[in-house]
Parts: sequence; C-alpha cells; structure tokens
Amino acid sequence: MPTDFSDLTHRLPAWVDACRVHTAQGSVATYIPELAHAPRHALGITLHHRSGKSVSAGDSDMRFTLQSISKVFTLLLALMDRGEQAVFEKVGMEPTGDVFNSMLKLELVQPGKPFNPLINAGAIVISSLIRGDTPEHKSQRILGFIRDLAGDDSAAFNEDVYRSEAATANRNRSLAYFLKDNKVLDADVEPTLDVYFRQCAIEVTCAQVARMGLVLASDGVDPATGRELFPKRFARIAKSFMVTCGMYNASGEFAIQVGIPAKSGVAGGILALVPGELGIGIISPALNDKGNSTAGVHLLRQLSEQYDWSMF
Amino acid sequence: MPTDFSDLTHRLPAWVDACRVHTAQGSVATYIPELAHAPRHALGITLHHRSGKSVSAGDSDMRFTLQSISKVFTLLLALMDRGEQAVFEKVGMEPTGDVFNSMLKLELVQPGKPFNPLINAGAIVISSLIRGDTPEHKSQRILGFIRDLAGDDSAAFNEDVYRSEAATANRNRSLAYFLKDNKVLDADVEPTLDVYFRQCAIEVTCAQVARMGLVLASDGVDPATGRELFPKRFARIAKSFMVTCGMYNASGEFAIQVGIPAKSGVAGGILALVPGELGIGIISPALNDKGNSTAGVHLLRQLSEQYDWSMF
Amino acid sequence: MPTDFSDLTHRLPAWVDACRVHTAQGSVATYIPELAHAPRHALGITLHHRSGKSVSAGDSDMRFTLQSISKVFTLLLALMDRGEQAVFEKVGMEPTGDVFNSMLKLELVQPGKPFNPLINAGAIVISSLIRGDTPEHKSQRILGFIRDLAGDDSAAFNEDVYRSEAATANRNRSLAYFLKDNKVLDADVEPTLDVYFRQCAIEVTCAQVARMGLVLASDGVDPATGRELFPKRFARIAKSFMVTCGMYNASGEFAIQVGIPAKSGVAGGILALVPGELGIGIISPALNDKGNSTAGVHLLRQLSEQYDWSMF
Amino acid sequence: MPTDFSDLTHRLPAWVDACRVHTAQGSVATYIPELAHAPRHALGITLHHRSGKSVSAGDSDMRFTLQSISKVFTLLLALMDRGEQAVFEKVGMEPTGDVFNSMLKLELVQPGKPFNPLINAGAIVISSLIRGDTPEHKSQRILGFIRDLAGDDSAAFNEDVYRSEAATANRNRSLAYFLKDNKVLDADVEPTLDVYFRQCAIEVTCAQVARMGLVLASDGVDPATGRELFPKRFARIAKSFMVTCGMYNASGEFAIQVGIPAKSGVAGGILALVPGELGIGIISPALNDKGNSTAGVHLLRQLSEQYDWSMF
Repeated sequence: MPTDFSDLTHRLPAWVDACRVHTAQGSVATYIPELAHAPRHALGITLHHRSGKSVSAGDSDMRFTLQSISKVFTLLLALMDRGEQAVFEKVGMEPTGDVFNSMLKLELVQPGKPFNPLINAGAIVISSLIRGDTPEHKSQRILGFIRDLAGDDSAAFNEDVYRSEAATANRNRSLAYFLKDNKVLDADVEPTLDVYFRQCAIEVTCAQVARMGLVLASDGVDPATGRELFPKRFARIAKSFMVTCGMYNASGEFAIQVGIPAKSGVAGGILALVPGELGIGIISPALNDKGNSTAGVHLLRQLSEQYDWSMF
Repeated sequence: MPTDFSDLTHRLPAWVDACRVHTAQGSVATYIPELAHAPRHALGITLHHRSGKSVSAGDSDMRFTLQSISKVFTLLLALMDRGEQAVFEKVGMEPTGDVFNSMLKLELVQPGKPFNPLINAGAIVISSLIRGDTPEHKSQRILGFIRDLAGDDSAAFNEDVYRSEAATANRNRSLAYFLKDNKVLDADVEPTLDVYFRQCAIEVTCAQVARMGLVLASDGVDPATGRELFPKRFARIAKSFMVTCGMYNASGEFAIQVGIPAKSGVAGGILALVPGELGIGIISPALNDKGNSTAGVHLLRQLSEQYDWSMF
Repeated sequence: MPTDFSDLTHRLPAWVDACRVHTAQGSVATYIPELAHAPRHALGITLHHRSGKSVSAGDSDMRFTLQSISKVFTLLLALMDRGEQAVFEKVGMEPTGDVFNSMLKLELVQPGKPFNPLINAGAIVISSLIRGDTPEHKSQRILGFIRDLAGDDSAAFNEDVYRSEAATANRNRSLAYFLKDNKVLDADVEPTLDVYFRQCAIEVTCAQVARMGLVLASDGVDPATGRELFPKRFARIAKSFMVTCGMYNASGEFAIQVGIPAKSGVAGGILALVPGELGIGIISPALNDKGNSTAGVHLLRQLSEQYDWSMF
Repeated sequence: MPTDFSDLTHRLPAWVDACRVHTAQGSVATYIPELAHAPRHALGITLHHRSGKSVSAGDSDMRFTLQSISKVFTLLLALMDRGEQAVFEKVGMEPTGDVFNSMLKLELVQPGKPFNPLINAGAIVISSLIRGDTPEHKSQRILGFIRDLAGDDSAAFNEDVYRSEAATANRNRSLAYFLKDNKVLDADVEPTLDVYFRQCAIEVTCAQVARMGLVLASDGVDPATGRELFPKRFARIAKSFMVTCGMYNASGEFAIQVGIPAKSGVAGGILALVPGELGIGIISPALNDKGNSTAGVHLLRQLSEQYDWSMF
C-alpha cells in the first residue's frame, strides 16, 4: 500500500517535535574536532516523493557533512568506474559485527580484505578505486556525482571539516597502511585518504540527501529527467549493503524495527529510502552508543510503523 | 510483478539438471558422522505458491534433517512463548561476521550474549526459552509447531542423527557452558542441548520446508486455512534475520545475488521464500566453503534473476 | 651471595606487618563461592632453607587450597608419567598475554592447543595425562605426590571447596569441551575435570608450600632425604614456566620486580623459590587486579630487593 | 660452575660445522627486500669472555643489521633518558603470545598500550622516547650507544637496508598510527619511524654483538674499562625481557631448552649472554617459522647443554 503522502505532510511536524526529545539521550561526535560544534538538539527531515512532491520539517535547512553516508555513493561510482568484479576482488560483501574502524578481521581473516564497503577499511579501498588523475580530480568526480544525484549544484566541500578530519585521522591512516601491507590497497596511502576525507566532508542539506535517496529508490533513474544515473544492478547492491550494514552495529536491529535501506554518518545525517516511492534525508547530530543519530532513528521507526514501510 | 508460476513449473526441471553439476564443487558435511552418508550429487526443490499450487523437481522426495533451518522456527516459538522483550534480553539482533560456532564475541564483547538467534550460541539460548516441563515436552512442542507449518504430520525426529549429533557436539557443549558462565543461559546445559539437538534432527522433505516457507511468506497465516500460526510482527523479525544472517557468512553476498529471505542447514537444506508469493524448500547435501548448499544457492540465484525476486 | 637466613629470620615479622596494609587494596576471589569466606586481611609466610632451618611469620598456620599452584605439580607428575614429548604434543611452551581462562587462542591459533600448562586450558589437558585407573586414583596420586614434596601427610582435599568449584565451573567445562572438540583433550571431560577440581582443592599450609618450593629449588631432590622426587630436567621446565607464566598476566612485571620462579593461586597462595637456597610459601587471600595476592607480591618484592634474589 | 672457555674454544668449530646443516630447514626473510640477498647457509658466532678472551667460528666476519636486536639497546637508552616510570607508562612488561607485528591487543586490551618493548609496537614507542632534537640526532645517539657497548666505532647504518625498510614498512606505519590514535605515541609518526628504521639498520659483526652481550652480562659495566655504561637495574630489566619475550613466540620454548637471555633479529642475528660470564653474537640468516635463526638456536642449545648455562 503506497504511503499517503498528504497525510504524512500534514502530520510530520508533530512527529519531529515529539522525536526531538530523544536528542537529549545522545551525544555529538567529538573525535573530529570540527564536528563537536554541531547543535545537539537539532532535528530536521526532508522526504522526497517520486511524484516530485517533497516535505520538510524541523531543522531541515541545517547544513551537515555526509561523512559515512558518502560511502554509498563512492561505492556506486567505483562500480561504474571499475565494474563489479574488480570492486569485489578488493572488498567483501559481509557484515562484520565489529566496530566501524576495527582492524581485527584484517589481521584475523585471510586474505585480509575489508568485509564490506561501508566500514572504514572498505570505504578507503573504494576511494582508491575512483578514477581520476589526481586526488583533486577524483574528489571533483565524487562531488559531481553527488550533485547530479542531489539535483542541484550547491553541495560543496566543507574545508574546515576536511582539514579537521585530515589532521586527526590517525586510526584511518593506520587502517590504510594495514590495507597497503595486505596488498589490498594498491594506491598510495595519503592521496587515497585525501579523497576519502574530502568525500566525508561534502556538505549537504536534508533536501539534497532526500533527493539522492529518491534516485536510489528509483533504481538509479533520476525521477525528474528520466536519465539513468547508475544501473539498476548497482542500485540493488547499494540497497543490499544499506540493509545489512548501513547502520553500523545496529543494522540488524534497524532491519527489524524500521526495515528500510539506510545509511548513517557521524555528523548525525541519515540517508534512507522506501523502494519505488521515497527518498529521505535526516539530520540530528546527537548520536546513540552505536553511532547513529538517536532522534533520527526514532523518527524513522515512527514513520515506518505508521506507513508500514518495512520490506520484511 | 508476480512470478509466472506456470512458466516456472515448465522450466524448473531443466534448471535443476543444469545446477546439479555444481554439487561437484561442494562437500558433504562430516562433523556429524551420520550426515556423511548423504548422497553428494542430490539436488531437489519444491516451490509452494500461495494459490495452493506447487511444483517439485529433482530429488525432492529425499528426506533430510532441518539442522540450522530449525533455528528460524524455534525463534518464532520462543517469541510466542516469552515475548519479544524477554527473547532479546538474551540474544542480540546483529550479524557477526564470525563463523557460526565461534566463541570470540562471547568473550570479547560484553555482556557476552550471542549476537543473533541464527548462530549456534544464539540458537542454544533460544532453545532454552521454549516452554515445556521437560526436554521431551519442549521437543514435542517444537515438532508440533513444525508439523503445523508443514501442513502434515509426517515430520519426525531422526533418532540416528540426533544420537550422532548428541554424541559428538563438543563445540556446542563448550558454547553452552560459556553462555551458562556468562549468565546468559539460565537453564541447565544438557537438557537445553537435548532440545537443541532434537530440533536439528527433525526430518523433513522439500515439500514440507516449502510449505513452512509459504507460511512465513504469508506473514504467519496458513494459506490453506487462513489461521494465524504466528503474528505478523514475528514473521517480520524472522525474515529480517534470514536476510541479515540466514546464510552464515555468505548472507551479505546472498542478499546481493539472490535478495530473498533464506536459511540454510548443514544437511544441505535451504528454506527460502518470496514474500507474499512463494515458499521454497531445497535439498542438496554438498556444501560450499561457507557451509551453504552449493547447488542450492546456484539454483536460487538462477530463479531470482529469472523472476526478479530480489527485495532490493 | 647467599641469603643471610638469620638476618631474614630476625626481620621477617616486621616486614609481614608492614606488607599487611596492602591487603586493603585487594579483593578476595568470589567466583568459587567457598573461597569468598577467606579472611581478607590475612598474610602469612614460611621460608624453608636447604639447611633445614625454616621461619614463619604472620598467619602462616592458616590452611588454604592450592588452586592454580597445583598446576606446577601436575605438570611435573604428567612429565614423569608420560614423558616430555607426549606432554608437549598436547600443550605449548609459550606465554599468552590473554587472561588465564581465555578461549581466544584456542579458536584463533591452530592447532588449537593450549599455549602453556599454567593457564586453565593447559592445566586441564595436563590433568588428563596423569596416570590412574579412575579419577579417584589419579587424584590420590596427585595428593601423594604433593605430600611427598611437602614432607608430611597432612595435605588433604577440602571437600567443600571441591564441591563448590565443581558446581560452578562452567567456564572450565566450556574450555574442556572446546579442547575435546579440537582433539587436544582425548579423555572424557567430566572425569578429567573431576581430577582438575580436586587438585585445586588440596588444602595446605605455608610450611608445606615452602617445603614443596625447596624441592624445586633443589632440582627435584628432597633436601632431607637426598631422594630424587623428580628429575632435574623437569625441575628446569617447571621453573622456566614459573618465570614466564607463573603470575598470570603480571608474570613479566614480576620477573622484573622480583625475579624468582613463582606460581600464584586464586585462594591467595604463592609458591616461590630461590634456586639452590630456599622454598617459600605465602598466603594472603586479597588479590590484585591480575589475580595475584597483593600483599604476597609486595612481601616477595621486599625480600628479593633486600637479599638480591633476582635471577636477572 | 663456570664455563671452561678453553674447552669451548677448542670445540666450537666442530659444533658450528654440525649446526650449519640446520640452515637448510630455514628461510631467509624477504619482507624487507634488501635482506633477501643474505647467504642462506651462513653461520657465524663470537663469544666474548669477561676475562677479555674471545673466540669466533664460521662466518663470524659477516656483517649484518641488528634489526630487532636493537630493541634491547633502545630500551636501555630510553630508560636512561626518561627513567623507568616514564617508560612503563607507555609500554607494558608482559609477553603477548601474538605475533611480533600484531595489532590485536592494541585494539582489544585497554588502554591500548603495547604489551612489552620487544614487539614492534612497543619498540616504536621506545624509539619515540629517545632524547634528541631531530631524528638524526636521536639516531646518532643510538649509534653512539651501540658503539660504546661494542667497544669499537665501526658499527654503522646500512643505508640500503634502511631505505629498503623505510620504503616497505607499511605494517609498522599502521602500528604507529594506531598508537598515535590511542595517544600512546605522543611524537609524530614519520620522524619516530625514521629513528626506528635506522636503529634496525645498524650493521654489526658477531664480535660487536658479543661485546654488547658481555656488557649486559656484566650488569652494565664495560669489562675492559670498568666504566658503567648503564645501571644494573636497567640491565636486569633488559635481561628479564630477553628471557620472557626475546625470541618472539618461541621465547617460552627457548627458556626451557636454552635458558639464557637472548634477543633475535630478522636478519638472522642473535644476541645472547651468560650472566656474569659471557657475551654471545651469532649470525645465520635462515629463519625458522617463529622468526628466529634456525641454526643459531640449535647452536645455542648445544652450547647451553654442554656447559650447563641454563638459569633454570
């Protein structure tokens, strides 16, 4: 049964108000110093319907960096750049159960390749597969892809966040050198990380993320122009990973409680979608202990239950 | 687009013949001695449509034990017996990335409860939650539930397999005592394992497994009688786990390549379903290196691609 | 320079008094319920000199169970019963860095044999190698060996501690079944554990432990009778393990700070020795966070510094 | 009983010839490309007696790089530069049981500091504690200390090995960034690694290593001049670590079979000593599966058994 979008439009502000209280249980990420300034009690959402309608509520105008949400889109771009076989020679397809920046399985499970492209180790390898002559070129191609999906050109690199992350990302450097040692990462470490830090620092709004989600919900077709931005097969791959690994180590719980493809980022953003129907962008910087936006997850659960969105 | 069941009926035998060759790449499980006798090149399938029609091909009459497939049904029964909250106080909802009988996370991740109900550690805890005065009583309740779902009364315990497993299951004993030490398992170890070994040793045919899958595909409603055998909410939980953890450490790959809820067992059986449409039972004892029936997975992939079954 | 034993005899009571204050920083072990009753502030010591002289101070008359101290003596007995080669086919010679009851390396490091005979997994395997027709017979042989070393016949099984440990030792059962599954433990689990629990429950005094230490310090020769109770080669093996793994995960620190072979037990006992000179028995039930008697370690450090006992 | 050095001098060439055959069972390290050129069947030894006498046999003139042997001396220098407390705030005192370049415990055991100064992670931290204004200054101080101990000025950096290691040391870079992220390493990564790679690339002969061992055997006193090159307390610390962790994951076995303080390096060198008597330098590039010089270990075992060198 399709979502009653006018009912949703009408009721959304009240739900946002009700869910905002959950921000009090979360904490803003501090490990990237620049992120620590985010407003702890913010909550914003935009939903974009395939009909072209959209609705926003709360702090939906707030700008935030994609962080791990970008991993979905670099995966799509790498698949288009290199093909499915080349990509999955370098990263696996499995959830790990370890924390997002863990190195355990790289050491313990031969041949030491990352379990999937949505953990940091996997996303770093994916960044190395983006085509381009220089890190700048690769970064611009990623930004261009994001802008195409967002349907506008205002997404841009937040230089402060980029520099803050580049200056403090010792764990990611450690991961990258480990991958280099395992011969999973062929490219040089610092240029690869430069691409990775820049993709994380792309600044967007809820509306842009919702629009990107809608393209995924439409199997890669831009709903406004009818143009294929990526093949349906790659949309399927991306949505599968979002369900099995998109919400860090709460992905299994999210599948049960909400049941739609989603990917969260440490800035508090969530990309989600209802296949064939809707793209969703959420921002709420206060994170729960699994690293997902606490109010954002509550809001999605409420909406999923109300409109029976679960795929399961 | 609904599956063209008459087309499928027509073409199924040829696909089974074509997939049988993959049995040569797999090996029959030997760690339970009694399983080692299974015919290595067998491949059988039954699909049960909600309309009441069904189709079988290959060695579909072969009897085999449920093994890990039973974990889906004891989860459902435990949810009905104890409620969702009590069950998830004892087991988690997350994929692990470790092998099915691993103890690593029980030692490393506090509070030492199993990550999900489809790995051995989780399934043992679930077995302890089945109501019943004695192990025999609990086992009979599980068997009764399986028979209700299968729609006939011929499913029965294979006493040879039960004894073979009970006599050699030192790793499961180790897991159970670890859980006992972690105070996750409240019940006594041996009676709990007795229930667990018996559920694994329930012998079925492809037609019975397909019928059980159809009830899941119908959100808990028996398609013949319209009777609710378990609540829709619990069907959702079961299907979520089947997607995120149903195919051992190839669940992520299976989600991408096949995209439907499924659960495999070490005897070579697979339970699968197309939500709202079909239940599927497969047997093919030769396993790949992830522990899934190698020809069975190939056959499901072929069918999923042909009829566009993927949820993603 | 040999220890000035008359100086030591004179000054010992003052050192015991001074070290007793450290008991306040430790905690009595509670995981075996029967041990929880031990007096938290007790501290006793006996030193036995090869000349036949001995000195005691503090609560040296207190009786306590050997617990892990017994692992040194079952290792010696297994070496005599089976020979060096047979023993080290089943257990390794290396420190682990993991906690004493860890299962990690059994799963992660092939072929899954315990790293050394002083961790629980290794000691359980060693218990299985003791010759005897029944668990009772094996236990009696261990007790007899302990009595021979102690030079008197009053060491005996504490039945309450034995029953308390046998009733609660789920982690040890888990270890034993894991070893059985790995085919490192050939014997049956429960009879093996019965021997293991009994050896842990042998009740002794400081004087007896000191006497046992003196035999080790004398390379296996009973200093009173001149009889060889075990070969010099096995004394060397035992002392090596005491230095590299005798004090749990504080063995390296103890080697630096004290520098003599020692083995502690969870009841708060410590067996130590100065090669060629002295055997030492200590009891002080309050343990530090590494599981060693906190006041006992302080007292040994004081004595080692004063009399320059370090081997290093 | 002191070693009969004239007997040893007489018989040494025959033992070297007999042990050389064991080189056939080992392999020359290849992970640092420049090391792969070493002569596989070489075996050389020098023993330096406190009396001033020395004896050499086999390929004792061969020059080789210290590699991990250097860790003993940077530890001594860091202890003199910073004091015992500051050093052990940053590294532990315990054996690990994991491989020398493992990251497992850094992730699993809080607070993520290296278990001891003889594994790579610990040695990198130690290098960061050497005083000096620049990496060059620190490296010169290390070289100067080595030359003082060796009693001559010919030890020098092998620039080819240094560059080869610096160019390929991705695993060490990964370790260093992990330590930086854990806030265990305060200094910058690359300058610290530069010091570390240089200390590994110090080229020596057996005679020089034997002389360095003799200073350790003499508790820090230069036997020729009577000058204290480092305090006795630090000699004790170094010797303790050599016994508990000096021979990688064969340290426990080496303690049993040989029983003297030793440290091996991946170039095939071994530093060993008989306390109060002798320093020993060995080179034999073919390594066994634990990373120790295979013929070198055999030769030490033979000598230890013959002259009863074991401390245990």
